[in-house]
Amino acid sequence: MPADHLIRDILRSKDATGIIISHLPHIRWICGFTGSTGLLIARENEFDLLTNSIYETQAASEVCGAEVHIGSHPMSEFAKEEGLVDSEDRLVIQPEYLTVAELTAWESAVPGISIIPVENLLNKHVAVKSVEDIAGMRRAQAISDTVFKEILQQIQPGIRESELAARINYHHLMLGASTMAFETIVASGPNSALPHARPGERKLQPGEPLLLDFGCMVDGFASDMTRTVHLGEPSKKFIRAYGAVEMAQKRAISSASDGIEVSTVSQIAQDSLKEFGLNDFFIHSVGHGIGLEVHEWPRISSNSSATLRTDYTVTIEPGVYFPGEFGIRIEDTILINSNNCERLSTIGRDLLAI
Amino acid sequence: MPADHLIRDILRSKDATGIIISHLPHIRWICGFTGSTGLLIARENEFDLLTNSIYETQAASEVCGAEVHIGSHPMSEFAKEEGLVDSEDRLVIQPEYLTVAELTAWESAVPGISIIPVENLLNKHVAVKSVEDIAGMRRAQAISDTVFKEILQQIQPGIRESELAARINYHHLMLGASTMAFETIVASGPNSALPHARPGERKLQPGEPLLLDFGCMVDGFASDMTRTVHLGEPSKKFIRAYGAVEMAQKRAISSASDGIEVSTVSQIAQDSLKEFGLNDFFIHSVGHGIGLEVHEWPRISSNSSATLRTDYTVTIEPGVYFPGEFGIRIEDTILINSNNCERLSTIGRDLLAI
Repeated sequence: MPADHLIRDILRSKDATGIIISHLPHIRWICGFTGSTGLLIARENEFDLLTNSIYETQAASEVCGAEVHIGSHPMSEFAKEEGLVDSEDRLVIQPEYLTVAELTAWESAVPGISIIPVENLLNKHVAVKSVEDIAGMRRAQAISDTVFKEILQQIQPGIRESELAARINYHHLMLGASTMAFETIVASGPNSALPHARPGERKLQPGEPLLLDFGCMVDGFASDMTRTVHLGEPSKKFIRAYGAVEMAQKRAISSASDGIEVSTVSQIAQDSLKEFGLNDFFIHSVGHGIGLEVHEWPRISSNSSATLRTDYTVTIEPGVYFPGEFGIRIEDTILINSNNCERLSTIGRDLLAI
Repeated sequence: MPADHLIRDILRSKDATGIIISHLPHIRWICGFTGSTGLLIARENEFDLLTNSIYETQAASEVCGAEVHIGSHPMSEFAKEEGLVDSEDRLVIQPEYLTVAELTAWESAVPGISIIPVENLLNKHVAVKSVEDIAGMRRAQAISDTVFKEILQQIQPGIRESELAARINYHHLMLGASTMAFETIVASGPNSALPHARPGERKLQPGEPLLLDFGCMVDGFASDMTRTVHLGEPSKKFIRAYGAVEMAQKRAISSASDGIEVSTVSQIAQDSLKEFGLNDFFIHSVGHGIGLEVHEWPRISSNSSATLRTDYTVTIEPGVYFPGEFGIRIEDTILINSNNCERLSTIGRDLLAI
């Protein structure tokens, strides 16, 4: 199991006897289990996965390097019954992923147990993608790229946002995606000024922008991309803003490589927008880690202290939003290398007037 | 605001000065906000919604009865900065929905604050659906019913599970669903023995069962249904098991009305399967509450102490699973009335051989 050394290091540095891993993507990362109910107790040379009978067959075929225990909620009581924990234990937990109620359940199921909360326990390790992980990310992005090209042919006035979203999702699943990575955004006209717009009954109209933000899951890995196109001739304001966002995204991507702080990448995008006087219209962070989850550590923002490392995959997605008018966002998923980074998408970023 | 009296009662019974509501569906239930980042601080005669700038426009149009504050993470620090909390406060929290890290952030942002964890704070109230809620549930189920009838026409040997899932999702979105309520399950042949199977590349074959479990979100409300059909002539074992599941589901539904304990409903389904010697093959709970979330309180299981009440909506979904062979599940969403209950779906439950 690749996590062996990591677990041992954590146990020693925290003087702990075990680790309760409750975040499902991290359980998957360690032992391969993909079910929606589970808990992993990691010790030196011993890994135990607890899940329920719904996943008995699935766990038997998926789980590698951990003993599977089939039982019922609450997991803390089940772990106690199985003799997997006792009152002498000093257990590390993931405080961002364990609820207050779950913690209380552990403390009441195993009186005397010591709990050691450690934030960001595995994030830096999960962020580094293996060769197989990167291949999965590429497959996911390749499907999204193909769908984007297909959808471009279908964009025309009169189509409803919701219809276009339905088609985007349909093509992804037909091409092998297991699911969408998040709710597809199709935002036309003034709706594009809402960063998290939901596709609705609004019909595409000539002379308006159209923002498409979508991604899928393939073999457990996520894709994520955004493009903003324009139906018919764009206004001067739109062209100028588009150029500003495109430049901010390109400059941020150019800066991304092993060793750079994410706050620097964020500042580069913000400074670039500032040259156009548009930084006040950029109202979200520059990007986020992506992999087994569509939103992973690190967040690419000015108040993060994280540093990009080789084989991290993150999104870079500056945008500007003019409420009631329009919004523009351009997003790519990139793979960090030692001296630069690689966009996983092959889709260009020039302004497309359709 | 309909929650006014409820909030006052909670504050008085817990001797609290305010309530931190962190569960997004509950925030939506109270003030209408549908964004994915938010926190509501509820006090006697004062409700404050905290969210970030991504949702500024959306919150302004959605939120009713609460003052909107736009700021950044962590919400606890932002609440302190806005003067919404102080060290004299005694704040109720929802321990199932607040992480250990969030609790720590509150205690460190507002030294001296008293935290009062109360499980199941709003569940019994959110479970009671209003007239408008029920209309939303009916719209969602009506779309799923329409899709099921369309999909029945498309089921034939040779189609991949993933293709059928893509079509199910596509039709839902085209008919007005905002998204699917969960990952659609299309499980053919032996895959149907996995209660949470994921649609894959397997092609439908003659002489095999096909299990379809799907639901959508419409105006914030969820539908959820499962049917198991058979391609070609079913075996005697399948017919017998289908009859057993159908009878268990009908008996459980017949028992459901205001005042019955969910453990009794669960026992009725289990006893019914036991008459066929099949109760050992029923490996999940009988159902779950459904509404703003596809899985809500209460869980319909033997170890729950909940009681069904008028205007609750829950699913009833017994099943049997023979690993390596096949599985059968029949699921309906029902609306509890004073003397009986109503299936929201109009789709029959007779065994369909296609």
